[in-house]
This record gives sequence, C-alpha cells and structure tokens, in this order.
Amino acid sequence: MEHDVVDTQISPEGHLEILSKAEVNKLLDTSQGGLYNVFRKCALAVLNSGSTIDDGKELLERYQSFDISIVQRERGIKLDIKGAPAIAFVDGKMIKGIHEHLFSVLRDIVFVSNEVTDNPKFDLDKTEGITDAVFHILRNAGVLKPMLNPNLVVCWGGHSINRAEYNYSKEVGYAMGLRDLDICTGCGPGAMKGPMKGATIGHAKQRLHRGRYLGITEPGIIAAESPNPIVNELVIMPDIEKRLEAFVRTGHGIVVFPGGAGTAEEILYILGILLHPDNAEIPFPLIFTGPETSREYFVQINQFIHDTLGPEAQQRYKIIVDDPELVAREMQAGIKAVREFRKSRSDAYYYNWGLKIDAEFQRPFPPTHENMRNLSLHKDQPVHLLAANLRRAFSGVVAGNVKEEGMRAIEKYGHFEIHGDKAIMGPMDALLASFVAQSRMKLAGKPYTPCYRVIQ
Amino acid sequence: MEHDVVDTQISPEGHLEILSKAEVNKLLDTSQGGLYNVFRKCALAVLNSGSTIDDGKELLERYQSFDISIVQRERGIKLDIKGAPAIAFVDGKMIKGIHEHLFSVLRDIVFVSNEVTDNPKFDLDKTEGITDAVFHILRNAGVLKPMLNPNLVVCWGGHSINRAEYNYSKEVGYAMGLRDLDICTGCGPGAMKGPMKGATIGHAKQRLHRGRYLGITEPGIIAAESPNPIVNELVIMPDIEKRLEAFVRTGHGIVVFPGGAGTAEEILYILGILLHPDNAEIPFPLIFTGPETSREYFVQINQFIHDTLGPEAQQRYKIIVDDPELVAREMQAGIKAVREFRKSRSDAYYYNWGLKIDAEFQRPFPPTHENMRNLSLHKDQPVHLLAANLRRAFSGVVAGNVKEEGMRAIEKYGHFEIHGDKAIMGPMDALLASFVAQSRMKLAGKPYTPCYRVIQ
Amino acid sequence: MEHDVVDTQISPEGHLEILSKAEVNKLLDTSQGGLYNVFRKCALAVLNSGSTIDDGKELLERYQSFDISIVQRERGIKLDIKGAPAIAFVDGKMIKGIHEHLFSVLRDIVFVSNEVTDNPKFDLDKTEGITDAVFHILRNAGVLKPMLNPNLVVCWGGHSINRAEYNYSKEVGYAMGLRDLDICTGCGPGAMKGPMKGATIGHAKQRLHRGRYLGITEPGIIAAESPNPIVNELVIMPDIEKRLEAFVRTGHGIVVFPGGAGTAEEILYILGILLHPDNAEIPFPLIFTGPETSREYFVQINQFIHDTLGPEAQQRYKIIVDDPELVAREMQAGIKAVREFRKSRSDAYYYNWGLKIDAEFQRPFPPTHENMRNLSLHKDQPVHLLAANLRRAFSGVVAGNVKEEGMRAIEKYGHFEIHGDKAIMGPMDALLASFVAQSRMKLAGKPYTPCYRVIQ
Amino acid sequence: MEHDVVDTQISPEGHLEILSKAEVNKLLDTSQGGLYNVFRKCALAVLNSGSTIDDGKELLERYQSFDISIVQRERGIKLDIKGAPAIAFVDGKMIKGIHEHLFSVLRDIVFVSNEVTDNPKFDLDKTEGITDAVFHILRNAGVLKPMLNPNLVVCWGGHSINRAEYNYSKEVGYAMGLRDLDICTGCGPGAMKGPMKGATIGHAKQRLHRGRYLGITEPGIIAAESPNPIVNELVIMPDIEKRLEAFVRTGHGIVVFPGGAGTAEEILYILGILLHPDNAEIPFPLIFTGPETSREYFVQINQFIHDTLGPEAQQRYKIIVDDPELVAREMQAGIKAVREFRKSRSDAYYYNWGLKIDAEFQRPFPPTHENMRNLSLHKDQPVHLLAANLRRAFSGVVAGNVKEEGMRAIEKYGHFEIHGDKAIMGPMDALLASFVAQSRMKLAGKPYTPCYRVIQ
Repeated sequence: MEHDVVDTQISPEGHLEILSKAEVNKLLDTSQGGLYNVFRKCALAVLNSGSTIDDGKELLERYQSFDISIVQRERGIKLDIKGAPAIAFVDGKMIKGIHEHLFSVLRDIVFVSNEVTDNPKFDLDKTEGITDAVFHILRNAGVLKPMLNPNLVVCWGGHSINRAEYNYSKEVGYAMGLRDLDICTGCGPGAMKGPMKGATIGHAKQRLHRGRYLGITEPGIIAAESPNPIVNELVIMPDIEKRLEAFVRTGHGIVVFPGGAGTAEEILYILGILLHPDNAEIPFPLIFTGPETSREYFVQINQFIHDTLGPEAQQRYKIIVDDPELVAREMQAGIKAVREFRKSRSDAYYYNWGLKIDAEFQRPFPPTHENMRNLSLHKDQPVHLLAANLRRAFSGVVAGNVKEEGMRAIEKYGHFEIHGDKAIMGPMDALLASFVAQSRMKLAGKPYTPCYRVIQ
Repeated sequence: MEHDVVDTQISPEGHLEILSKAEVNKLLDTSQGGLYNVFRKCALAVLNSGSTIDDGKELLERYQSFDISIVQRERGIKLDIKGAPAIAFVDGKMIKGIHEHLFSVLRDIVFVSNEVTDNPKFDLDKTEGITDAVFHILRNAGVLKPMLNPNLVVCWGGHSINRAEYNYSKEVGYAMGLRDLDICTGCGPGAMKGPMKGATIGHAKQRLHRGRYLGITEPGIIAAESPNPIVNELVIMPDIEKRLEAFVRTGHGIVVFPGGAGTAEEILYILGILLHPDNAEIPFPLIFTGPETSREYFVQINQFIHDTLGPEAQQRYKIIVDDPELVAREMQAGIKAVREFRKSRSDAYYYNWGLKIDAEFQRPFPPTHENMRNLSLHKDQPVHLLAANLRRAFSGVVAGNVKEEGMRAIEKYGHFEIHGDKAIMGPMDALLASFVAQSRMKLAGKPYTPCYRVIQ
Repeated sequence: MEHDVVDTQISPEGHLEILSKAEVNKLLDTSQGGLYNVFRKCALAVLNSGSTIDDGKELLERYQSFDISIVQRERGIKLDIKGAPAIAFVDGKMIKGIHEHLFSVLRDIVFVSNEVTDNPKFDLDKTEGITDAVFHILRNAGVLKPMLNPNLVVCWGGHSINRAEYNYSKEVGYAMGLRDLDICTGCGPGAMKGPMKGATIGHAKQRLHRGRYLGITEPGIIAAESPNPIVNELVIMPDIEKRLEAFVRTGHGIVVFPGGAGTAEEILYILGILLHPDNAEIPFPLIFTGPETSREYFVQINQFIHDTLGPEAQQRYKIIVDDPELVAREMQAGIKAVREFRKSRSDAYYYNWGLKIDAEFQRPFPPTHENMRNLSLHKDQPVHLLAANLRRAFSGVVAGNVKEEGMRAIEKYGHFEIHGDKAIMGPMDALLASFVAQSRMKLAGKPYTPCYRVIQ
Repeated sequence: MEHDVVDTQISPEGHLEILSKAEVNKLLDTSQGGLYNVFRKCALAVLNSGSTIDDGKELLERYQSFDISIVQRERGIKLDIKGAPAIAFVDGKMIKGIHEHLFSVLRDIVFVSNEVTDNPKFDLDKTEGITDAVFHILRNAGVLKPMLNPNLVVCWGGHSINRAEYNYSKEVGYAMGLRDLDICTGCGPGAMKGPMKGATIGHAKQRLHRGRYLGITEPGIIAAESPNPIVNELVIMPDIEKRLEAFVRTGHGIVVFPGGAGTAEEILYILGILLHPDNAEIPFPLIFTGPETSREYFVQINQFIHDTLGPEAQQRYKIIVDDPELVAREMQAGIKAVREFRKSRSDAYYYNWGLKIDAEFQRPFPPTHENMRNLSLHKDQPVHLLAANLRRAFSGVVAGNVKEEGMRAIEKYGHFEIHGDKAIMGPMDALLASFVAQSRMKLAGKPYTPCYRVIQ
C-alpha cells in the first residue's frame, strides 16, 4: 500500500531556532548516544497528525523513507524533511500548527538530553530531583506562565471514543472556553481533541486570543496519539511518569471523559496522589463526565473505585452526566478554591510544588512481562500504594495495545499475566472486559485482541 | 411566556468610544429625527444572537422593557443596558463578541446619520454617490484593509438549513480557513455561521490569529439574522441594497450554499451585475455548493437560471457538489485571477471600484403590495435588468417572511401578488414551491404560510 | 543658490491610506476650490524639517520645482514626490518620522475639507460649532485616547531660543518623561523640540514605549515651524484659533518656556480663558520656567501681566526658575488635581469640554493692517476680553514676522500700527523691545526689522 | 557622609520570573558556594547607575546596609530590596530600566552557576568549551536573535571622557541610529552611554521601536561602569575574557572612541584576534573616531600600534576624525560586507562562530603582582600573541584603577611592575603617560595615582 509523502524545508518561528554546533551534531548523530532516532520518531508522529493510525510500529513501517535533518543557515537552523506524510500539508505547504510542533519536539529533545539527563544538578533517583527536572523541562518549554490566574483544565479520556462522546467533549470545551478556562490534554484525537476544538470556538466568541491548548506527551505514546494541530503549546516529557507529573503539577483541575485503559491509568494516578495523607488538605477539582449514553461507563468506573480503593476515594471526584454548563461552572468554582488556597500560602499558581507525589508514582515502570507478573495487587497496603500498583497494571495494558515496544514484546512473548487478590482482580477483569465490549481499547474499525490475561 | 433578562453596563474596547456631545444627544433622542429607535432595535437583535427567533416583530414584543442608553464617563462613554436577553451572557457577563457588536452598531448608526445622510457631499440619487457612500461607511468601520492580498470570500446561503448542509458549510469553511481565506457573510445562523466556525478551526491550525469573520447586515434584517459572535468585524449598512453592494465590492469571490428566497435574491443580484456588458471582462469567482443530499437544490436553481436568464448566465458560476477541498482550491485559484487582474490595472484590492452596478440594483426597493404587483417580469428587457426585477421579487418575499415591516404589511393587506410572463412565472413558482417543500423559508419547527402568490 | 533635492515615491503605513476617488481628485485639483495648493505647501514644510529657514515665503521660493501627487495602487495610495529638500532623507531614504507626517497632513486636509468645512452639521459661526469641529478633527486624527489617564503637558515657548534655554527645555522634558508625562507642542524647533527630545530619553529609561509627542500646527505657521520628526502624532488644524483651542482642550497642563511674540500670544490666550468667570473653578496647571540665565525674561512677562491684566491674572500661574525636577513634580501634582476634578464630574479626560472659551478667542483674526489698527486695547472691558485683544496684537506681530501672508502684507503696506491706552501700550512696547534685544523674534543669525509700531 | 537610600519590593516583568526552589535557595545562600554575595554586588552596581562613583570598593562601603532577597509569591518571585541608592528611583519608584536590569543580573547569575559552571557538558579548559559557554549564556539571555540582519555595532571607549568627546559619541550614535544600526557597549557612562543616547533619538525619528541597546558587563567591572538605564538588554558574563569574546562574536563591527587603559585593552584584544592568520579573510569593520579636539589621541594610539604590532596591524582599522555621518556610512558598508561573507558560507548572523580566538585571549588573566611581572612583552613571538600579552598588561592597569580586587591588591602590595623589551616599553610608557595627562584613567575630579610602573 502506497502512502503519499512530501519533501520540504522549514524554518522555525519560535524560540529554539538557535542551536550550538554541539547540539546540531548530537541531533544528527544516529548512534546509540545520539538523538537522531528519538527525534525522527517523534517528528514522524507529529507529521502524522490527523491520520487514523494509533500504532507506532505501523507508522514507522509505513514511512520507512522518512528522514529529517538540521541545516545551519545564516538566519538560524532549518529542518530538511524527506518523505513526510502528505496529511501534514495543505496544497504542498505544511500546516503551521504541525510546523510549530516539530520545533517543540526539537526543543524538548535537545533540552532533556543536554540539560537534564547528563546534568549532575538533577538527582533523578530522588523524588525532589524528579520534580525539579519536570519543572525545568516545563519552564524551558515556556509553559509555566507566572502572571496568569489559575485556569488550566486538564482533560483526560480516550483517544478512541464514539461520536456522541466526542461531540459532548466539544460542548464541555466550549462551555469552559466561554469561561476563559484553558485546556491541557494528552494531545491525541478523541477526548483529547474535542475539548480543544470546543474551547477554540468559545475563546473566539470571547475574543480570548491567547487561549492555551497545551498538549503534554512523551516519546512512547506520541505515535499513538499524534498531537492535533490546535495544540498551541506542545511538550515532550521524557517518559510517562514525568508526563503524568507534568499534568498534575501544571493543571488546576481535571475533567475525565470516557476512555479505555489509558484513562483508567490516569484516574488511578490522580486518585493515588490525592489519597496520599499529605495531600488531604489540598483542593483539586476532579470531575468525571460524559453524555447520557455514557452514563453506564461511569457507573462501572465508580463501582471499580469503590471496590478497590474504597468509599474514601469516591470523595475526591464528582460525576456529572450530560451537563456541559454544569461541568464548566463546577470546574470554575473548584479552581477558585485552588487559587485561594495557593494565595493563602504564597504557593505558585503555575506549578503545584505543594502536592506530594510518592516515589512509587514517579519511578518509571517498564511494562515487561516480568514486571507485570509481579505487581502487588492486594489490599494489604496503604490505599495510595494500591492505586500506584493498579496504575501500573493499566499502564502495561496501554503499552501492549498501542506502544511500539509493548507491542513487540507481546508479539514475542504472548499475553501479559496480571495476578492479585480476588477482591481486586474481579472488578478489574470486569472493567477491562467492558472496555473491550465498548471498543475503547483501540481506534475503531479493527477487532481487538487482548494483550493481557487477568488471573484471579 | 417569560424570558430571562439581564441589566448591565459596558465600556467599549474598540474605536468609537469617543462621542461628541451632539452625537450622544442624537442617540438619546427618541423623536422621529433621533437615532434611539433604530439603535435600540439593532442592539436588541445583536443581544439576541444564538436564539431561535428569526422574526423581528416577535423579538421586539418579547423584550418590551429592553432599554439602552449612553452614559458619559471620564474615560469615554458607557452603555447602560436594561432588560437584555440572558442568552447574550455567560454567568452574568456579556459575551465579548456581542459586546463588541453593540459598539459596531453604535459606530455605524452614528456615522451614517451624521456623516452620510445629511452630508451634501454624497449625492445619494446618483450611482456614484451611492458607491461613494458605501465606501465611506466601510472605511469608517475599518473594514477596508489596504495592505492585504485579496482573500475575502463571501458566503451566502440560508439561515434555515438542515444539519447536513450546516456541517458541509463548516467543512467548506475549514478548507478555506486552512488556505488563509477569510469569510464574509450576512452574519446570521445557518450558512452564515457554519463557514465562520469551520474557518476558525482552520485558522487556528494555521496560527492565523488575524482571521477575519466579516458580517454585513442592515437594520431591516438584523433581527431575523442576529450576528453570531464569531463575527469579529460587523458593519450595519443603511439598507439592503447598500448591504448587497458592500458584499460585492469588498468580497473577492462568492460561495453560495443552499438557502431560500434570500439566497435566490443574492444569486440574482450577483448574476445581474456580472451580466452587465461593462463587467464582461471582470473576473469574479462564483461557486454554488452543497452536500450530496442537496444536489437537487442546485439542479433546480440551475434550471431556473437557465429558463429565465439563459445559458450565458450559467457561464458565470460553477456548481460543485460535496467536495469542500475542491471548493476551497477553486476559490483560491479564482481569487488569484482577481488579484492579477487588479494588479494589472492598479485597481484597489480592498474595494472593487471597477464593477459596474446599475442604478436598478442600487435604488432601494420598498416591498409594498403595489411595488410587488408592478414588477416588470418579462423577457423584453436586457437580461441584467430582468435579473434586477427578479431580485426584487425575491426581496419582497424575504420581507414578507421575516422582516418586521413586511410582516406587518402582510398581516394588514394579505398576500403579495407577483405577475409576469408565463415563461418566467412558471419556473419561479416551481422554485418557490420547492423552497417551501424543503423548509427553506423560515427557521424549522413552525409551519410556513406563504406571503405571496405567483400569478401567471 | 542651489539646494539639494530628492525624488521619491512613498506608501503610507498609517490609517488614511485609503482614499475614495472623489478625495483623490480633490487633492489633485489645483484650482481655487481644490486642495492641491495647501497640501503642497504643508508637505513642503514637513519635508523641510530640521533646516534653519523659518520663513514660509523663502521656503516656497527655494523649492519652486517641488511637486507632490497621489497615485492609486492596488494596495492603496502612494505619494509621488519630486524636488523634495534633501534634508528629509538619510542616504536617499526619507526619514520615517517625516514620512508619517506627510500622511498626517494628507489626512487632516482631506478631513477638514470633506467632513468639516462643507458639512452643514458644523455651524462654524457658533462657539459650540467650532468646539465640535475641533473635537472631530482631533478624533479623526486619533489624538483623543479615551482609556488614558491625564498626562499630556503642552509645552510652549520660542522656536528661536538660545543654547542654555534649549538645554534647559530638554532637562524639563527629561524630568517629565521619567514621570510618564507626555509632551504636546507646536512642533517646531527650539522650545517645541527640546522637551520632546528630553522626554524621549526619559521614556526610554522607563520603558514607556508608547510615549506621545503630539504636535499641533496649522497651514499658516507650519512652514515657519516645521514639525520635528520626534513628533509621533501630528495634527494640522485649519487655523490658528482652532490650533490654540486644540492645545487647551487636549492638554492637561501647560509649561511655558522663554519665547518671543508667539509665546506672548499663547500666554495671553490661556490667561484670557482662565480669567473668564465661568472657568474660575477649573484647575489648570500653568508653569512658566527657564534656566537661571533667563530669569529676567519672566520678570518682564510677569510685570507685563501685572500691568495689563492685573494681580488676579498672576494667581493662575507659577514661575519656577532653573529647577526641572520641581517643574515636573508640580506639573504632576497639578494634573492629579485635574484628574480628580474631572472624575468627580464624569468629564472626559481626553477633551476638556468644560472649559468656556469665549467667541472672541475662537473667531479667526486676519492680521490685516486695518484689523491691527482697530484693536481695542484699553482697560474699559472685562479683563478676559482685554486679554483676547492683546492676544490678537501679538498674533499680528507673529504673522508679520514669519507667516507668508503677513510678510507679503508688510512688504506691500509697511508696518502694522498698534494703538491703545498708554497704560497698556507702554508695557507692550517695553516687552516687544526686550524680545528684539534678546533676538527672540526670528531664528538667530539675521538682523530683525520690526513689522509693527506701537503708538501710545 | 550620608547617602539617601530606599526600600522597595519589585516584581519581574521579563522572563526568569520563575525560579525553582533549589535556585532560590542558592541565591539566598551567603556561604562560599552560594550566590548571594555576587548577586548583591552586581545588584548594587545596577542600582547605582548614574552616580559618579567608579570604584567598586567605595560603592560597597557606602551602602553597607544594602540587602536584596528573593520572595516566592503565587504569581512568581519578587525581589525584596533594602537600603538601595536613592538615585535609582524617581519619586520613590524604581526607574523601569534599572528594575529590568536587576532581573537580568538574577537571570545570568543563576544560569551561569547552574547550567554552565557545574555542567560537565562545558569543558572550560578547551577553547571550544569556552566558546560554547559564551554562546549558551548569550542565548539564555535572549540576545541572539536569529531573524535579524546584521546591524549591531559595538562601541568602545572611555567611561571618563570630556564633554566634546561625549557629545561627539552621541552624534555618531545618532547617525548610526538613523541608519537602523543598533548599539552594544560595555554599558557604563561616557563613550558607553553617548552612542546609545544618540541612537535613541535616531531610532525615534525612524520609528524603530525595537532599537537594541545591548550592554555586556561582568561582575568585576559592573561596579565601576554601572549600566545606564537606556541599555535594554543587559548580560552579565562571568569574567572579562568571556565578556570580550561576547563583544566580538555578537557585534558586526566596532567603533572605538577615545578612552584610557580599558580602551587600549579592548583595541589590543580585537587587533590580536584579527591578526591571527586564520582570520585573515574575515571581514570585520573597525573604526577609531573622535572629535577634532581628540585627533591627537588617535595619533598616539596609531603610533603605538605601529611601533608594537607593526604596519600590518594598521590595515585592520580606519581612523575617522570629526565626521559622524562618515563613520555611520562606513560602518554600514562594512557590515554589508560582513553580511555577504556570512551568507556565502551559511554562517550565522547572530554569532560569529567562524572567528578564531586563540586560547591566550580566552584564558582568564588574574592581575596579580606576580602575573603582571611575568608578562612576555617582547617581539620574539607571533604578533597576535604579543597583542595578547599587551592586552593583559592594560587589563591589569584597569584592575588596579577601578576594580575592587585590584585596588585592594595595590593597597596591600604597591605598584604593579611591568617589564619588557625597550622597543615595546617605551611606546607603552608614553601612551600610559598621555592617558594620565589627559585624565583618561578615572572619572574626573580626583587626582590620579598610578597603580603601575613601566620598567624598561
């Protein structure tokens, strides 16, 4: 099968248009220590925005001839691109939003490699070191805006949702945009795109020309969830745990739309943090919402949380069905409380230093067959640690579904096996089965083969 | 039935925030010579944006207590508003786009009254005088932008169209927005809103922060077609003929979506002008388009034009069914030809002085019962004059359907009677009947009672 | 004697880059009713900025071949200029500030002719009509800025002052610029340029990028006092009386530096207004200031005011010698009082509608020999009317010194004769004699021949 | 003696308003490894702008109670300042330019400490490592602007020059500003301030609102040469050698005004680089200029260069006496050649990577008595190395004259002794003597006691 491709050369218009000689060399270096491979992979994902593939492996195979390199010119650098997916272009010219994203990718990959990974200043084995690294990456990306009032709503939810859910997410985005709330998502399609689209119209009607559509991703997921070009601030965090930390430290509240395993992972992540005893006093608006037709979905999630984490966990969120205006108003009220709380403590609005994130949530979890098999899924532990382990289980399922490495591992070794207490495995199996039944695992149109087996 | 209302006071943020004492007095003057009544009527229409009324009379009756007045403050004027429709507000605060529109209304009403109507400089009995007046109103509104390349596409079509047509108009707008084309419409709902909404997303993806969404209306129609708040440049022309002239002199091309009598009026207007012998050489891209489900509509329009104005008229437009990308590309190519033509003659890009508009198209046509009865609808006249008279016939039908004065006249005297040659009346009757059958006369949900009778 | 000239074509960058066909024709019309002659004269004056001529007649004779015309282009108009003084160019390219001034001239000449002079809306025989016309000209020029706090200081003083006075005026401008005060002057050299130059440095240090340097002139004086290119807002009022009215209605306070007959005219104008009984309550900071070496100058002015208008008049100003910081602080305090006064009455900050200006100060005074001879210079009249007549006497002297028409009249008919009460003529003669002795009548370097004779 | 002081709290308006917790702690750390002392010293120097002290030691003693600390607030950090020199304030409010400079100081001190000094990425023992560090510091400061055409003129010359020289430097700045050239200096008074002041007026007349006034300094010299507040981009390099490298890699040409030992140091630095064989082909406009009254000064410099570095060195500069316009035109032409040269090689416009700077010019030179005694001042070495050693000799003299550490060393150990070949020591002694005679060593008003002895 043939796929249209385009060759082009583009100049940056943003900030990191100036690279030192050493930085250029490292980006062009295709060896193990060089940055070429990760840069190429992320760039291709960005250029594939809007297509229907959600499979990193397939993407790389489809565009094998894709190449990207850096050219030094008297006015700064240029990117020389060959074999790019035609979908990124209109009449032969790259869509400006995608153009910008390529340079965001470049900026973050250079910064993480040069200033974070190899800099002894950051002790990435310690929780403070990780939090500091996340801060520096976001600051370098220009995402931390000191003079703004809190108004950033993180929207989570599936990349593969149905039309009614998608339209509903647009309506919620529209209601939030009308109220001067900005949107942050994982920047793929579905529930990550709808709220941004809706907010764009809301902001346009309110003449809010500086509306923010912040997308936070990482090299492992970007291919499955290409940033949509409405995203006007894009950050590539180095791994999934730092990406999640970036969400909860920059966002002032979270709305969760229906989704699949990834959404469950996100819900467990935020609940695990909010349930940490140190965070008991910290306000953090968290709303689960969907259209009438998705009511059942949240009934199941709510039940799963009740059964595994207990009723206390249910106090940290609200479920609102089919009422976009109410979601927006509740979020606005919740963020007002966040603002007052931080003001009273002179805490920064732009980065939630105060939130305690346990090392269990920060340490990267490689979803190998062994790691998956050895998860501690029992109730003999504090509830926030159980949440951490459940989070990992779902994270592994996501990897097996859509991430390049995870998929290769499944191809090679077969299913992940997930063990645990019956009181936990039962609800988990039920939840995953309902995701499969509702086609929430992958983009529609293909039958889904599970990558896991729950063993009770 | 109760309707929620809000009281508020707003400051301008635009240009005409400075009024002289004489101007303020004239706006507050509720006598015949004063401007209060027209200002109040237009302001109410603007505030009613987004509601489902398309009936000026009903609107005024519904909000009888609505009042708007001007207050002088040390930093400029303010508007004091009482009894405004709640729909214009989000959580008690006026939507910014609507807020801006109120001051556009103020600006144009003051300018037309003070600088145009009573200024001997403009001889409004002569075709040059009218064209000059249109120019001055548009210039004062800041709509003529000298340094821009031609890129303004006028979108015409019904305010009452079905969901498939509406979605299609969004897709066309999106494809045009991606290509840096700006949108101008009559600024109501339906085909006037869809292209702007689509273009907003297209512009956002291309980071075109100065996308223009120009709405041109007039006091008689504004109540039926409230400007949607995406419109970021709003002009109130003094009457329908100057509004139409404004469209064709500022737009660089026209896309026509499905619609009803108003759309037919617009098609006849532009064809009548393009068929004038003096305009034979002037390039002017004109595209009729709709989704597959509306194919039949354009078959009928095309047939009607063939039967009344002849095959020559059919040379001035293209019909494209169900292909938004192609519409955008054709429009882009057509506008390129416009640009080259004007450049070759040093003609202004921002105002098409070169187009000959016959006095028959400029002279206001009051749709009284007598005027409607006496229309010259026969083939014994140059084709562009026949177009002028057909245009008037449809204009009368629009007035009878949705304009306050027209509706009052129909209430009082019954149907308009439209006479003419059988060869013309037959196709006309068929076309109008098809509009009724397809619910294209009024916003859906109410049965339509025709305000006219075609007499063959 | 040869003078270098340059030919060029320039495009506008400001606002009135769009002219209608009728406006272009009127500007090109060299007949009596056309605007060509006044436009050419003012344009030449603007282009002569920075030269040492202060003589309109000499200027026109020197650049007889100078020609300026308007060319219509697809992106707007251009000015085609031939035989322009080389001083307006740097390496063949027109200085941007001068470039802008040419289009300001164009804007005001078109507006005054089209919208004011021939518009029945303005009754220029009535005091309200004149005030309204002044308002409209200033509003059209974009000079009335509604959202700003009062901070505009009018600086008056001679165009022909010595180096110490000039440096002192810069220091005052610097001290005012550091305090976010903006400057308005008659826009020629000397005391009209120094404060702007100083304020530019003060604003730069305070990062006030929107510092305003407003120049207000009129066709009769512009040749003698070419706008310096620091002026970033230039307005051409139709005559000297409207120019003076523009100063006092837009400025929030006035600083008077040493000067000659023109400065005396300005002092008498503002005192005559402030002495009107209706203005007794209105705060209006007025400061006379100069360096130590000019102390004597203000002693004389102060004496003259005492002798003619009486001690009451002396209450309306302060004299500060050699203390720029104090001038700036006093002005700031005075403007604060202005602000509070207007706020308490909801009076506009940007236009002082409340100031009563007697018709005697508004009616144009043509300085013919007869008018000069018939001035009522006696104490048998209210003090503000005596001020009005004294103002006219000095106005005539300025015309005879530097204005084209006045100089031609003197050439033809000899001296003006100025009659009046001895108690007035004595001080007047003394004051004028001191101006001559101090070379305050014309730009230095030429001997001065008086154009008047005081007859006691 | 008492000196007025002010306490205040200020918020940033620029970029590094966001600090991590670790960064704040390091800035507040008064221990050896902490940044408090250097930050306090530089901040005090910035606040002392405009005073007449040029002596870091005296400054610190005068304002012993001065304290500056960082406060974390919800919208970002604030600076809490106590005991600041009153000269930095206008009516109790800090001058905005100085306010900005404080945050520039903060930005550079944090960056150099956190990202450069302790980052293994930079090998500061190698010439590439140093050049890379200079690049990163400048990039972080936002000084490298990729899209601009070359137009940055470095102006060198004394901080202690006479009135005629100062006025002349303003005129040169004015002529360059009119031609859209930007100015970079060492950012103190005298020849470092005049060109910026002149260019400000030139830029204002040309409406160049983004005129750049770049000041580059370092902690050792900043107290002696406080940045003047016109400087709108300030960079604090870590030491004098990196400061000099920053000048020659960012500037596109250099104008040298009269000065003293520091100016001689700068001349020797740039000549030493341009004389390196690898730089033979690289265009670099270098102009020495002053008013007629300073002609003799350049005769002496020219002679000194002839006698020590030889006639070849004289080919790399032009001397222009008393012709500001010509200086500006020559510089413009020279920069045009620079632009063409870089374009032909795709070399960056914003950073001159191509210039070879020998390690001898990069290695910090601590002006101890021993180092000064051991300088190799003989002709038995390549001419560019002799220039390097002569540069160090003058650098030591500057330190002994105005730098805190140098002055303390002289107080303790007496004169520096400078040895060398007679053929070099003779001209050197003559040159230094002439600087003393012309009061070029320190700010006027105090007798000068030499800190060195030339031993032939």
